[in-house]
Amino acid sequence: MQGKMKVAVMTDIMKMGFVQKDIPQPRSNEALVKLEYIGVCGSDLHYFENGRISDFIVKPPFVLGHEAGGVVVEVGADVKHLKAGDKVALEPGKTCGHCEFCRTGRYNLCPDVIFFATPPVDGVFQEYVAHEADLCFKIPDEMDTMEAALIEPLAVGFHAAQTGGAHLGQTALITGSGCIGLVSMMSAKALGVSRVFVSDVVDKRLQKAKSLGATEIINGADKDVVKTVAQLTGGAGVDLVIETSGTEIAANQGIAALKKGGTLVFVGYSKSGMMNLAIGSALDKELTMKTIFRYRHIYPLAIDAVSRGLVDIKNIVTNVFEFDDIQKGMTESIHNKAEIVKSVIRIGK
Amino acid sequence: MQGKMKVAVMTDIMKMGFVQKDIPQPRSNEALVKLEYIGVCGSDLHYFENGRISDFIVKPPFVLGHEAGGVVVEVGADVKHLKAGDKVALEPGKTCGHCEFCRTGRYNLCPDVIFFATPPVDGVFQEYVAHEADLCFKIPDEMDTMEAALIEPLAVGFHAAQTGGAHLGQTALITGSGCIGLVSMMSAKALGVSRVFVSDVVDKRLQKAKSLGATEIINGADKDVVKTVAQLTGGAGVDLVIETSGTEIAANQGIAALKKGGTLVFVGYSKSGMMNLAIGSALDKELTMKTIFRYRHIYPLAIDAVSRGLVDIKNIVTNVFEFDDIQKGMTESIHNKAEIVKSVIRIGK
Amino acid sequence: MQGKMKVAVMTDIMKMGFVQKDIPQPRSNEALVKLEYIGVCGSDLHYFENGRISDFIVKPPFVLGHEAGGVVVEVGADVKHLKAGDKVALEPGKTCGHCEFCRTGRYNLCPDVIFFATPPVDGVFQEYVAHEADLCFKIPDEMDTMEAALIEPLAVGFHAAQTGGAHLGQTALITGSGCIGLVSMMSAKALGVSRVFVSDVVDKRLQKAKSLGATEIINGADKDVVKTVAQLTGGAGVDLVIETSGTEIAANQGIAALKKGGTLVFVGYSKSGMMNLAIGSALDKELTMKTIFRYRHIYPLAIDAVSRGLVDIKNIVTNVFEFDDIQKGMTESIHNKAEIVKSVIRIGK
Amino acid sequence: MQGKMKVAVMTDIMKMGFVQKDIPQPRSNEALVKLEYIGVCGSDLHYFENGRISDFIVKPPFVLGHEAGGVVVEVGADVKHLKAGDKVALEPGKTCGHCEFCRTGRYNLCPDVIFFATPPVDGVFQEYVAHEADLCFKIPDEMDTMEAALIEPLAVGFHAAQTGGAHLGQTALITGSGCIGLVSMMSAKALGVSRVFVSDVVDKRLQKAKSLGATEIINGADKDVVKTVAQLTGGAGVDLVIETSGTEIAANQGIAALKKGGTLVFVGYSKSGMMNLAIGSALDKELTMKTIFRYRHIYPLAIDAVSRGLVDIKNIVTNVFEFDDIQKGMTESIHNKAEIVKSVIRIGK
Repeated sequence: MQGKMKVAVMTDIMKMGFVQKDIPQPRSNEALVKLEYIGVCGSDLHYFENGRISDFIVKPPFVLGHEAGGVVVEVGADVKHLKAGDKVALEPGKTCGHCEFCRTGRYNLCPDVIFFATPPVDGVFQEYVAHEADLCFKIPDEMDTMEAALIEPLAVGFHAAQTGGAHLGQTALITGSGCIGLVSMMSAKALGVSRVFVSDVVDKRLQKAKSLGATEIINGADKDVVKTVAQLTGGAGVDLVIETSGTEIAANQGIAALKKGGTLVFVGYSKSGMMNLAIGSALDKELTMKTIFRYRHIYPLAIDAVSRGLVDIKNIVTNVFEFDDIQKGMTESIHNKAEIVKSVIRIGK
Repeated sequence: MQGKMKVAVMTDIMKMGFVQKDIPQPRSNEALVKLEYIGVCGSDLHYFENGRISDFIVKPPFVLGHEAGGVVVEVGADVKHLKAGDKVALEPGKTCGHCEFCRTGRYNLCPDVIFFATPPVDGVFQEYVAHEADLCFKIPDEMDTMEAALIEPLAVGFHAAQTGGAHLGQTALITGSGCIGLVSMMSAKALGVSRVFVSDVVDKRLQKAKSLGATEIINGADKDVVKTVAQLTGGAGVDLVIETSGTEIAANQGIAALKKGGTLVFVGYSKSGMMNLAIGSALDKELTMKTIFRYRHIYPLAIDAVSRGLVDIKNIVTNVFEFDDIQKGMTESIHNKAEIVKSVIRIGK
Repeated sequence: MQGKMKVAVMTDIMKMGFVQKDIPQPRSNEALVKLEYIGVCGSDLHYFENGRISDFIVKPPFVLGHEAGGVVVEVGADVKHLKAGDKVALEPGKTCGHCEFCRTGRYNLCPDVIFFATPPVDGVFQEYVAHEADLCFKIPDEMDTMEAALIEPLAVGFHAAQTGGAHLGQTALITGSGCIGLVSMMSAKALGVSRVFVSDVVDKRLQKAKSLGATEIINGADKDVVKTVAQLTGGAGVDLVIETSGTEIAANQGIAALKKGGTLVFVGYSKSGMMNLAIGSALDKELTMKTIFRYRHIYPLAIDAVSRGLVDIKNIVTNVFEFDDIQKGMTESIHNKAEIVKSVIRIGK
Repeated sequence: MQGKMKVAVMTDIMKMGFVQKDIPQPRSNEALVKLEYIGVCGSDLHYFENGRISDFIVKPPFVLGHEAGGVVVEVGADVKHLKAGDKVALEPGKTCGHCEFCRTGRYNLCPDVIFFATPPVDGVFQEYVAHEADLCFKIPDEMDTMEAALIEPLAVGFHAAQTGGAHLGQTALITGSGCIGLVSMMSAKALGVSRVFVSDVVDKRLQKAKSLGATEIINGADKDVVKTVAQLTGGAGVDLVIETSGTEIAANQGIAALKKGGTLVFVGYSKSGMMNLAIGSALDKELTMKTIFRYRHIYPLAIDAVSRGLVDIKNIVTNVFEFDDIQKGMTESIHNKAEIVKSVIRIGK
C-alpha cells in the first residue's frame, strides 16, 4: 500500500505534534495494520512528562504508544494466518528467538527485544504500522479494536495473576486500584479466584474496582487493611497478593495479609526502586514473592477471556480522545489522575 | 526401661545446671532413644544469651537442644520400622496431621507443631528421649550418631536449596558462611549445582567454606561481591542465591548478582526483621524470591546424601564438648563466634 | 443423640433390605450427620450386581453408598468449625495422617484409608452417620444437600481436570459422557477451558453433555472422532483429553486427537484392566499421560464452584428415588443405563 | 575455507560409498566445524538396514550420522561465543524460533525442525559441516571430541531422566540396557538418584550397566523383575521407571514395579508402535506416564556433567571404526548387536 500517514510525535516535554511519514511496506513475515485504537499507558505519560524512565531517554521527535488494536490491510508473502480485514491486537515486543531466554520460552526477558515506544524504538501513535505477523493476534468478530488495544495492559494483569498461581477457590488481595490493579483483579477472577479484595486510598478508584467485579474494596485511608482482610477471611489470610501500587506500605500490608505459604507478586515500581520489607514475617510464613517483567504467552488467553465475557476490559476506559486531540488527551491524563483511570486514543474513524 | 537420667537445664541467662528426671516411657507409637550427640544451634545460643526469641520466652529451668542423634533402646507396641540398637536421627517437630497445612504436605507450617527447645516445649540436652517413631530416621551403618545429630541443620540447607530449585548445571551464590551458609552450600552442590560461590566478611569462615567444597570464596570486605560474581560468570550472573547472613547488604548483592529469571532464597533473619531491598531491580529481572521456615520431607534425602559421601557434614563441626562441660560449651560458643563455627555436645560415651 | 435409625443393606446380589441400628455417637473429633441425599455411584451398582470389584468382595449384609449430603445434628467436644444445623458434604475417606503419602499431601494414596462402601467398610445408605469432622465440609446457604451429595462425583471430575492441568484458554476432549464424563467436562469448563468437546456413542448421553455446557458433542458411531476434533481445532488438536469411557478405542482417539506436548488423563477402568495403546504416536508427540485415583484437596474448591454457579451439578441427576424405594432405584439404575445418567436416594424428608 | 571434503554416503540398503563435496561456507550465524568423531545411532543402523523409519524414506545417495564432535575452524561474522580451535558438541536440530512450540521453550516439538540424517536432510558422516553457531556447544579442555560426539545420545538420557523428575534420594528402574538404557541410567545417577536398577535379558549388556554404575542389574530371563525390585526396595517399589527396551513386557514390569504416585518415562519405540498396558493397575496407583521426543535445553547440562566426572560417557563406547572403514563399522554394528553396545566413527586423525 502506497501513500502517506499521519504520525503523532512527542516534540518536547509535554508537547505533541504531528508529522507525515510514508506508510510502511510489510516484509515477507509482517502484516500492515491500520491502527484504530491506542491505549495510553502510564509509561507513555511518564515519558511525556519527564522525558525519560531510568536510562531510557526520549530524543524528540519520538513516537509514543504501544497498546494497539487495528485492522490488517496487507500481509507479507509468508504470512498464512492473517488476511486483509482481520481485526488484530498487537503484542509490542519483537524478540530474537535465539538467546537463552527465548529458547527457554521466557522471551519477555530477551535482552535484544525491540519494544514499541521504548527509546530509541518508536511507538505507534500513528495511522499504520508494519509488524511481525506472529505478534498480530486475530480477535474474534464479537470483539472490537478498542478491546484489542486493551489486551496489552490486560496481559500484564494476567501475567501477574498467573505468575502468582491464581486458581479456582482462592482468595486474593490486590493492592492498588489503578489500571494495573484493575486488570490484575479482573485476571485473578477470570482465573477462578473466588474472592478478590482491592485496597487503595482513593475512593473513586475503589468504586471502579467494585463496578468491575471486586468482591470487597478497602480504603486504607479509613481502615486497617490487614485487619480488614483478617476479618474477611475468618483470620486465615489470603492466598495471593498482587502489589500494583508501588508503595512499601502496601507491600508490607500484603505480607501481613497473606496466609502461611502464600504468594506475593510485585508489579508496581516504587519511586526510589527500594522497598523496606518485613522479611522476618515472610520467613515465619514461608512465602513466595515474585516480580514480573511485562508478560509472555498471554495474548491468546487474554483475547479468549475477553471474547467469552470473563473480563469486561472495555469498562476500565474512562476517557476516549480523538487522534487530533492527542495533546489534550496526554495533558489531561497527567493532570487528572484521580478521575482518569484509563485513556484511549481513537485513530481510525 | 526404668531408671533416672541426667538432664542439662538452662537455669538463668548464661547459666546451665543439671537435674535428674525419670527416663520416659515410650507410648505405643514412640521410640525411646539414648542420645549420643546434640548439636548446638544458633537458636540455643540466642535463648541462652537473651532468654527469648521474639515471643518465645524461656521460663527456667528449661531444656535446650534440638539437633539429636542417638540409638534406639526400646520401641512402642505399634512401631514396626525400628528396633533396639538402630542408630537414628531425630526430626524435632511433631505435627497434627489434620490441619490444612499437614493435609497438603506442608507440615512445617502446622500451627500446632510441638518442636524441641521452643518454649514452652523442652529440648533434648539429656540422656534419653521418647519420640514419635515416624520422626526417628534410621541411619545406615556407615554413618555415626554425630552425623545423625547434624542432619537437623543440614535439613535447613537442603530445604533452602530445594526451595530454590537447585539443580544440575547451575551456578549459585551463598551469602553468609556460618553454619547455615555452609550446609546450604553443601546442599546446593549435592543437588548438582556446578559452581557454588560463598561470600562473607570473615576469612576464617570463608576458609571453612573452601575446605568444604565451595568453588570460589569472596570476602566482601575486600572485594565487590557483585562485580566478582559477574567476572566469575562471564557477565551472566548466577541462577540461584541463598541468603543466610541476615543482612540487607548481602540480600541486595544477591539481587544484583542474579541472572534474569533467577531465584533468591531468604534463610537468615535480620535483627530488625526488616530489609530494604532493590525491588525495582528485581522487577527488571523478573525474579523469584522465597523465604523458608524450617524444612519438610528432608531427613531421608539428607541421610542418603551424607551416607553416599555427597555431603561431608561432619567437618562443619569445629568443637565437641562433653555433656558435663555443657556450661563451657555454651559460653565459649557465644564468646568465640569467629572461631567456633559449630559445636556439638557429646552425651553418650 | 439416642435412638434407632433405618439402614438399607445389600442382602444378596441384586437384593436390598432394611435393618435397624443404634444411631452412632460422635467421638470428640466427629460430627453426627443426619443424611438427606445419597448419590448412587457406578461402584455401588457394580457391587450390587456382581458382589465384588476385583479383590473387594461384599459380605452381606453390607451397606452401600458413599456420596453423602446431610445436616449436622451434634458435634464432638473438639469440633470447632461445625455446629448443629450446618449443611455438609461428606468426604468419604478417613486417612492415617502419618504415612509417606499422607505426610506429602497425597492422602488419597494412603494405604490405610477407611472409605465408605468399600468392603469390609460399610457405606451410608442410612439415616445418620458419625464422621470425622474435618471430612464434613460446610456448604453455603445457597446450596442444598442434594448438591452436597454430588460433590463426591464432582470431586473426581475436578481431580481429573486439575491433574491434567486444565486452564484458561485451552481446548479439551472428554471421551465418554456418563456421570464421570459429565463432571469432568463441567470441571474443565470451571477451570477455564474455553472449548470442551465430548465424545460418546449414545446420543442421549451426548445431549445431556450438550445441555450441561459441552461446546461440541461428537457421536463416534456416526463420525470419525479424531477427524472431527482436527476440524474443530483447525488441525491443531486439543491440549487435554480426559478419558472416562474405559475403552481402548477412546483412549487411542485421545492420543490421536492431542496436540504435541498435550496431556491425557485416564479415569475410566477398562473391563480387562488392559489397554492396547499407540505409544509410538505418543512418543512422536511427547505426551503426558496420567491416571487418577479418587481425589484429594478438592471439596472446598468444588463446593465453591457449585455455590458460585460455575458448575450446574444438580442437573446431572436424572432420577431421584425415595429411601423406601431403594430396591427399585438400584435395579432400575442397572437395567436402564441409557436413560438413567445419575440416580440419587432421598433419605430425609 | 576453500577445498574439497570426503563424505560417506549410503548408496543402497547396507551399502556405503564415498563422494567428494565442496567444504561448505559458514553463513554469518554459523560455525564451520572439522568433524572428528561421529557416533553411530540405532536410527542410522535402522535406515542403513531398512531404508526407512516409518514415513522417513532414504533416497540415496544419503548422508547418515547425527552425533557429532569436532573443532571449529572458522566462524561467521555474527558469531561471538566461538572461535577457531574451540572443541564443540553439535546439537543436530535447527528450529524455527517462531512457532508455538519454539516460543514456549519446547523447541524439540517444532514442526519445521531441520535435523541431521532425517530424510531428506543429510547427516554428518563427512569431514566438515557448517552449522548454526548457537547449536555448537564449546566443551572444556578436559573433554575430548569423542565425548563431544556422545553428548547427543546422553542428551536423550538426561531428557528422559529430567522429564521423569529424577532427583536426590530416589530409587529408579531402567528397563533395557542398550545405549539409551545406559545413558538414562547414568543421567538418573547424575541427577542424584540413589539407587538405579537396570533390567534386560542379555547378560553382556547388564554387565556393561554394572560397570558404568548401575546399583543392581536384573536379568529378566532368569528372575522375576517385579519381585526382585520389590525385594530390593523392601516392598516399596521404585519412584521412577525409564523404559528404553521398546517392549510391552518391560513397560508392564515398570508399571508393576512403581510405587504409588510414581512416574514412568517411555523412551523406546515398540516395533508395532502399540503397547498393551495395565492401565487398571496404573489407575490404582495414580501414576504419571510420559513419553519423550529427542531433548531440549540439555547440551550445557550434559557437557557439565561429563566434564565434572558425573557421567563416564566415554565408556559406553565398545567399538571405534576409522572413517575409511565405515562400511565395516555399519555392517558389524548391525550383525553383532549383543557385543557392540556403541560404535563411533573416527574422522579426524
